[in-house]
Amino acid sequence: MNGDHQSTDLYDRYKQEMQKLADVKYSAAVLQWDQETYLPPKGADFRGRQIATLSEISHQMFTDEKVGNLLQDLVSKELPAEQKRNVELTWEDFSRLKKLSPAFVRKMSEAVSASFHAWVEARKRNDFSIFEPLLAPLVDLKRQEAELFGYEGHRYNALMNEYEKGATVAMLDQVFSDIKTPLIDLFSEIQQKTVADDRFLFQHFSREKQWEWGLYLAKQLGFDLEAGRQDISEHPFTTSFSSRDVRITTRIDENDFANMTWSTIHEVGHGLYEQGLPSRQYGLPLGEYASLGIHESQSRLWENCIGRGSAFWQFYYPKLQQYFPSQFSNISKEQFVKAINKVQPSFIRTEADELTYHFHVMVRYELEKRLIEGSLQVHEIPLYWNDQYKALLGVNVKDDKEGCLQDVHWSHGSFGYFATYSLGSFYAAQFWEKAKTDLPGLEAGIASEGKTDELLEWLRDKVHRHGRYYTSDELCALVTGKKLDSTVFVNYLRQKLNVL
Amino acid sequence: MNGDHQSTDLYDRYKQEMQKLADVKYSAAVLQWDQETYLPPKGADFRGRQIATLSEISHQMFTDEKVGNLLQDLVSKELPAEQKRNVELTWEDFSRLKKLSPAFVRKMSEAVSASFHAWVEARKRNDFSIFEPLLAPLVDLKRQEAELFGYEGHRYNALMNEYEKGATVAMLDQVFSDIKTPLIDLFSEIQQKTVADDRFLFQHFSREKQWEWGLYLAKQLGFDLEAGRQDISEHPFTTSFSSRDVRITTRIDENDFANMTWSTIHEVGHGLYEQGLPSRQYGLPLGEYASLGIHESQSRLWENCIGRGSAFWQFYYPKLQQYFPSQFSNISKEQFVKAINKVQPSFIRTEADELTYHFHVMVRYELEKRLIEGSLQVHEIPLYWNDQYKALLGVNVKDDKEGCLQDVHWSHGSFGYFATYSLGSFYAAQFWEKAKTDLPGLEAGIASEGKTDELLEWLRDKVHRHGRYYTSDELCALVTGKKLDSTVFVNYLRQKLNVL
Repeated sequence: MNGDHQSTDLYDRYKQEMQKLADVKYSAAVLQWDQETYLPPKGADFRGRQIATLSEISHQMFTDEKVGNLLQDLVSKELPAEQKRNVELTWEDFSRLKKLSPAFVRKMSEAVSASFHAWVEARKRNDFSIFEPLLAPLVDLKRQEAELFGYEGHRYNALMNEYEKGATVAMLDQVFSDIKTPLIDLFSEIQQKTVADDRFLFQHFSREKQWEWGLYLAKQLGFDLEAGRQDISEHPFTTSFSSRDVRITTRIDENDFANMTWSTIHEVGHGLYEQGLPSRQYGLPLGEYASLGIHESQSRLWENCIGRGSAFWQFYYPKLQQYFPSQFSNISKEQFVKAINKVQPSFIRTEADELTYHFHVMVRYELEKRLIEGSLQVHEIPLYWNDQYKALLGVNVKDDKEGCLQDVHWSHGSFGYFATYSLGSFYAAQFWEKAKTDLPGLEAGIASEGKTDELLEWLRDKVHRHGRYYTSDELCALVTGKKLDSTVFVNYLRQKLNVL
Repeated sequence: MNGDHQSTDLYDRYKQEMQKLADVKYSAAVLQWDQETYLPPKGADFRGRQIATLSEISHQMFTDEKVGNLLQDLVSKELPAEQKRNVELTWEDFSRLKKLSPAFVRKMSEAVSASFHAWVEARKRNDFSIFEPLLAPLVDLKRQEAELFGYEGHRYNALMNEYEKGATVAMLDQVFSDIKTPLIDLFSEIQQKTVADDRFLFQHFSREKQWEWGLYLAKQLGFDLEAGRQDISEHPFTTSFSSRDVRITTRIDENDFANMTWSTIHEVGHGLYEQGLPSRQYGLPLGEYASLGIHESQSRLWENCIGRGSAFWQFYYPKLQQYFPSQFSNISKEQFVKAINKVQPSFIRTEADELTYHFHVMVRYELEKRLIEGSLQVHEIPLYWNDQYKALLGVNVKDDKEGCLQDVHWSHGSFGYFATYSLGSFYAAQFWEKAKTDLPGLEAGIASEGKTDELLEWLRDKVHRHGRYYTSDELCALVTGKKLDSTVFVNYLRQKLNVL
C-alpha cells in the first residue's frame, strides 16, 4: 500500500470514529431539546441520568487511546487542506480534553449538577446565599480546570478559549476599554432626548397570532422548516442534530410583543448559520460553527442590523399591521421603529437594548476575570455586582433575582462565555457594513420587497460554509478585510440612534 | 468480606451496568419517538445513523465480556427473590443475544434497513415484486437467526420466543384451531342479521375537537399526563423512556370518528401498563413488561372490553354528545354502541372489528410459520395471502397494498409477532372476566359514573407491578386461576354481539 492509500484509509477511519461520536453527542442534544420542550415533569430525574450517561460515553469514546493513536498517526500525514484542518482541530480538542482525568470530569459534572439545583432554588427564594456554598467549590474547580488546560498570560484565558479560541484578557480588556467611553457618551446623549413611547408594544397579543407571525417571519428570513422546526420553551434557544435538523425555540408573552418577535429573529439567525454548515462535514470540525462569537454575530446581525432596522419594517410593518390590526393601525412605522429601539438602563441583560447590553456584559466579564484570578471571592459577588450596575448603568439593583442570580451560566460552570455576546455584536456590525458594500442594492431590496435572500447567500458563502476552518479573527479579516474593530459597531449604533 | 456483602456488591454493580444500558436504549427510543412525531423530513438520514449508533453501542455494552462474567458470578449467588429473578432474566437475555455475532447483527440490521426502504417503495407503487428481492434475504437471515438461537420442535418457535416467551407452534396451532370454528360460526350468524348502520361515524369531526376529546378520555381513564404525553404520528404507538415518561400517539381523520377514539383508548391501555411498571426497577427486567401478549391484553382490555362496552357509553355518550352535538344529537346511545361494534369482513387488519381481527392474524401466523420452516417461498406470498383471505374472510383482495403489503412488521424483520395480537385479546377477556368477579360493582360504577379507577388499581396490582417476574402463562394462571383459555374470549364476544 502506498503512502496516499494509507492516509486515505486512516482518514476514513478517523472520519468514521468522529461521526459515531457525533451521533452520540447529537443524541444527547435531542434528549436535551426534548427536556426543554416536551418532557413531562415526572420524567425529569430519569432524563437527567440518560443525558449524563450519553455524555460519559461520548467523553470516553473521544478520549479513548485508539482515537489518540489514530490522530497521532494522522497529524504528520500529507492530506488535502480540508482534511488536514479537520485533523488539526480534532487533535487540538483531543489534547485539551485529555488533560482532564475522568475523575475530574465526573467531579465537575457533579458540582455543576449541584450548583444548578442550588441556583434554581436560590432564584426562587431570591437569595444568593443559597447559591453561594455550591458556586464556591465550582469556581474552585474552574480555576483548577484552567490550570489543567494551561494558558499564557491570565488564567481566565484558558476558560475563554473554550468558547472563543484565541480570546484573551489582554484583547478583551482592550476591546472593552476602547468601547466604554464612546458607549457612555452615546448613552448620555440619548438620555437627554425625549424617551420613545413604547407602551403600544405591551398591549394584548394573542398566543395563536403571535405564533403564526413568528413562523411567518422565520420562513420569510429563509429558515428551512423542512430541515428544522420551531417549538416553545421557557428560554429560547437553538440546537441542532445535523445541519439538516436545526431546532429553534421561542416563548410567547401575550402582553409583550417584543419578547417573541426579536427572540425569534435572533434564534433564526443562529438557525440559519447551523443550516448553512456543510452537511458533508457531519461530525467533523469543518461541519461545526467557528466560535460562539461568530455564532452570536449571526443572531445579532439578523436580530438587530436587520430586524430592528428601518428598511426591514418598511416592508414588514404593513404585514404586521395585517396580523395585528387593532394593536397597530394607529401607530406609524416611524413610531414603531423608534419604540423597538428604545434605549434605557435596565437590570436584565436579555431584555436590554443594543447599547446598554454591553454594559451588562462588561460587568460580568470583569467579575469573572476577578473570580478566576482569585481577587474576588464568591461571597463578594452581590455587592460587587450591585456597585457596578450603579456605576455603569446608574441603577440600584434591588435584589439578587434582578441582580447576580439572573443568568444560568455560572450554575452550568460556563465561565468565559459572556464576552462572546459582545464580540458577536461587534462582528455583526462589521459583517453588516461589508455586506452593504458588497451588495449595493441590499437595503433598498429589503425595504421594497423584504428581500433578504441575497444577504443570506452572502453569509452562506462568506461565513457559514467554512465551518471551523478559520478562527474568529481570521474569518473576520477574510470577510471584512480587517480585524475586529469595535468602532464599526459604535458608528453603526450612533448613526442608527441619531436618525431615530 | 462475607458472602452476603459480596453478593450485594455484585448485584449493585449489575444494577449499575443495566441501568446505564437502559439509559442508552431509552435514548434511542427518544430519537425514534421524535422521528415519528416531530422530525423535519430532511433530518431523516442523519437520524437513521444516530439511532443505529446507539443500538450498536447498547448491543456492545450488553454483550461485553465484563457483563458476562458479572452475570456468571451472580447467577449462583443467594439473593432475595426479586433480585434473583432479575439476574435470571438478564442471564437469559444475555445468553440468547450472545449467540449472535456482531457481524451477524450488523448484517441483519443492514438487511432490515434495506427491506424497510423497499417496503415503503413497494407500498407506494402497490407492487410486492419491489419488496420481494429484499425480503427474501431477510427471511433467510431470520431462518439463520432461529438456528443460532436454537429451539425445540418447530424452527418458528425460536422467533416467537423473542416476543412471547414460551409461545410455540404446538400451542398456537391448538389455540387457533380451537377458536377457528366458533369464530366462523359466530361470524356467519352475525352475517344473517341486519347490518348496523354506522354512517354517522363518518361525518366531519374537526381536528381540534377530536384532539380535545381524545385527551379528555386519556385523562379520564387515568393516564397520567405529568408522567406522559400524547402527540400525533402517522401510525399510533406507545413508547416509554421510564415509567415516569410514557408517550402515546394518535392520528386524526376528520371524516372518521372511530379512527382516533379507539386508537387513543388502545394506546392509553398500553400507556397505563407502562406507567404502572415499578420505577425503582428502572433498567432491570422487573421494570419491563411481561410479554407482548400481556402488553396487548392491556390495550385490548381498555379498547374493547371497556371502550366498546355498553356500560362505558352509558356514562360517556352524553359527554360525547356535548363534544359533538351536531353529529350525535339525533343518535341514540344504543345506535352508537351497535355501530362501533359492527362486524364485517375487511382487508385491513388494523381496522378490523373484534371478531374478524383474528382471521387476519391467523393468515399471517400460518404464512410466517411456512416461510420460516421453508415450505413457502417469499415470491409465493401474494397468492397465498389472497387465497387465505378469500377462504377465511370471503373477500377478494384486489391489490398488494390492501393485501400482503399492509403491515410494516416483515420489513422490520419482525417474524413471530402477530400471534401476540390474538393472545392479547384472549388474555384480555380472561382478565376482564376475573376483574368483574373480583370487583362486583365495576360495571355498574362505570355505567353510572364512568368509574374505571378501581379496575386500573386492580390491573396495577394483578399485572403491572410484577413487571417481567412471571411469564404470560404464569401471570394468567396467577391472576385468573386458569391457563390461557380462548373459550372465555369466544363467550365474551358471543354474549356481547348477541345483546347488540
